[in-house]
This record gives sequence, C-alpha cells and structure tokens, in this order.
Amino acid sequence: MGLHKVEVCFSPALFPDFRNDAAVVVIVDILRATSAIVTAFMNGVSKIIPVATLDEAIEYKKKGFLVAAERDGIVRDFADFGNSPYNFKREIIEGREIVYSTTNGTHSIMMARNSYRVLIGAHLNIGALAEYILHVERDLLILCAGWKNKFNLEDSLFAGALTEKVLNSNRYETHCDSTHASLDLWKVAKPDLSGYIEKAAQRHRLKKNNLDDVIDYCHTADLTSVIPALNDYYLTRLENID
Amino acid sequence: MGLHKVEVCFSPALFPDFRNDAAVVVIVDILRATSAIVTAFMNGVSKIIPVATLDEAIEYKKKGFLVAAERDGIVRDFADFGNSPYNFKREIIEGREIVYSTTNGTHSIMMARNSYRVLIGAHLNIGALAEYILHVERDLLILCAGWKNKFNLEDSLFAGALTEKVLNSNRYETHCDSTHASLDLWKVAKPDLSGYIEKAAQRHRLKKNNLDDVIDYCHTADLTSVIPALNDYYLTRLENID
Repeated sequence: MGLHKVEVCFSPALFPDFRNDAAVVVIVDILRATSAIVTAFMNGVSKIIPVATLDEAIEYKKKGFLVAAERDGIVRDFADFGNSPYNFKREIIEGREIVYSTTNGTHSIMMARNSYRVLIGAHLNIGALAEYILHVERDLLILCAGWKNKFNLEDSLFAGALTEKVLNSNRYETHCDSTHASLDLWKVAKPDLSGYIEKAAQRHRLKKNNLDDVIDYCHTADLTSVIPALNDYYLTRLENID
Repeated sequence: MGLHKVEVCFSPALFPDFRNDAAVVVIVDILRATSAIVTAFMNGVSKIIPVATLDEAIEYKKKGFLVAAERDGIVRDFADFGNSPYNFKREIIEGREIVYSTTNGTHSIMMARNSYRVLIGAHLNIGALAEYILHVERDLLILCAGWKNKFNLEDSLFAGALTEKVLNSNRYETHCDSTHASLDLWKVAKPDLSGYIEKAAQRHRLKKNNLDDVIDYCHTADLTSVIPALNDYYLTRLENID
C-alpha cells in the first residue's frame, strides 16, 4: 500500500487546482476564525453556523441565534459579540447554537464541503487533528483561508506544523511544493513563533484595532482535543457526525 | 517620500488581487521559460514572441519564424527546437525572431501587460534586474508563473533572492506575507541551492524526461546584464523600448 499524500493550498482561489474529494480537508484561519471556532467548541457550544455575509448573520439573529459578527475590528450593532476567541466564554455559549460571520473562513469551509471530511484546524487542537488524520489514513489537504485570496504567514506556518506531525508518522509523503515551503517556514519560525509572527500583515491589522491580544493565545498548541467538523451547512463536534 | 513596495504573487491565479499597474512587474518561470528567454537574448536573439498554445506556434512557423515548442519534454514535430535554454545557441539564433511556446509563462506575461514595465527575470540576469529596479524607483511586483496555477519552490526562491537585493537598498519595504515567506525560504535555500531544489516538484518532472541537466544552469547568478522586456505583444531588450 502506498503512502498517503499531504498537500497545502495557500489560498481559496487556488482550491480548484487542489480539490481532492477523497481527502480530509483541514480549514485554517489562525487569526482568528478557526481559533475562535475551536475555542467555542472547547467551551461547550453545540453548533456553529458559519456565514459569509452580514445579511445572513442578521437573518439568523432574527431567528434567535447568538451571533458573532464584526468588520474591521468593530462589533456590528445587531451582533451579540465580535469574532475574537475570547468572546466565546463557557457561561455565555454552553449548549447554544452560534452564527459566526467570517468572510475568508466561511468561503473556504463551504468550497471544501464535498470532501470526505471538512475539519476546523488551529494550534489549539493540532495534536488531536494529527491523531485523527493518522487514524483515518486518507490524503490530507490543508486549506489556508488566507486574507482576501492572498497567502498569509500564520496559516502557512500552521500548515507546516501539522505537516510535520503527519510526515513524522512515515505513513504520509508529499510532492507538493507548497507543503515543502510550509514545513521549511515552520522550522524557521518554531524556535520563536511570537517573534516570527511580528511581521505578519494580519498582526498589524489586528494591532491597529487593538485586537492583537489574541495572537499568543491563537499560537498555543494543544489546549483541547475537540475537533469541529462540517455536517451539511453547520459545524459540530467530529464525534457527532455519523 | 515614502519607500516603494515589494510584493510577490505566487500564482497567476492570484494576480487580480496583486495587480498594480504603476509597478514594474518581473515575470519568473525559472524552470525553464524565463531562464531560456534570458539566455536567448544573451545570445543575440532580436525578438521573442511568447505564445500560449501550440496552434499559435504553428501559425507563426508557417510565416517563417523559428519556433521553440515542446510539451511534456518532447519537441513537437513542427518546431525547430525545444524549450531548454541550451537550445538557444548564438550561431542559430543571433539576429533572429523566435516564437516560444510556454503555457505558464506566456499567460503570466500577458496578464501583466498593463503594468509600467513587464520584465523577464531569472537568476541569470538578477543583478541587472535589481539595478534597473533601484534606478526606476517604482513599486515592484514579482509574478511567479508557478505550475498550472500552483505555487512552486524555484520561482519563489528567485522572488526571495530579488527581494533581498532590493530591500538591502533601504529604499524599498514590504508588508506582504508572500514576500516575507519568499525571503525566508531563500535564506534557508541559499547556502545549498542545488541541494534545496532537489525536492522541487518541477525538478522531478524534468528528471523524468531527462531534462534536468539545466537545473544548475538556471540557478546561476549574473551570467548576463540583458533584461528582456515586453513591448506590445513581443519581448525585446529593455533598452530597445521607448
């Protein structure tokens, strides 16, 4: 039996050239959508509905859902809270259904929906992700949500970190240049991840809006073993999917 | 006066999000289109018409042009030679007009045609390129032709090498994550470029067709000071453009 493949797609705009419906696809938007979603499930949310537009978020709000929505760092009037992982405290969200408005993240999640599994990845659950991937033994495609179709450092570094774990098993291989690049960038950044991420464009965007307090948190490994997964149009815990 | 920007676009599919008509755009397809084109001008070709399809190449052949065309490493029947830089020997091409068929490269060249200048970049002319860019003092966009819209290592490494030269002048800056990544990959690869490029997917493709004899050549810096540039629909030496 041959080895399984790891591939990294740096932008949703490149997904058509990477699409592999037999693969497990891990969606990555480290600052902040996938880190926030993993945090919410860690703190007991029952379901998250990712939406791309504020209009959709407003429609859900009218139906009684809790809604997380902000643009350019400002919480929208109609929303219950913004998009920071820190908003998803257990006392507010446990057992609830939440609508999470995220432009880059939602688009990536939905474009991969025909894959074997769509999982939500973050440093916070990286160990559990690697364990599951090695268990199902399928091709792995890491889809970086990026920033408005552009490559970003923080998602690529996570892709390198997950690749490293999976390749270390010796049951996976890669012939994908983006994967090699992610792995090498991760090796450069790993000894001082906070220092490295200083130059990321998204760090500067968050800082401008005083939202950069989440950066170290979003780069913390293995806070939880929860894996959010796509079921139809919403996210739930992987173990709740048939 | 502010500093000028350097940006790197990893794939023609991402170009719409990087487009900057005021910029100098350097097209990169190290293995092998842009290395071959620079070599041809170094050896005295007068004009190169890049075409994307074999049909276009055949039409030009009928009009009496020399034609370089291959697919999957096999020279096409109608063509005068293949796409290797080694084909463009002075005794054959000096003073001639050549049609060069390249899928990834031509597409990238033509999509950037509204920029201030479209230049052909390779390690072979990297010093001259950097000198020209520092002379014109405009934004720089390095457009990697990639492989069928995918990121590739060899083009990104070149982007890092050119970025390094331009940033060293202290007259340029970057807030572009792809540029930071290119620079860091270049720093990893630079001490042993041949060794690093071993893992590039394109090296394996070329090797399979016994075409990998060009790899070291294509990674040789500063063999020439010639800069091919786009003039309407064809390439000529930069100094021949008004």
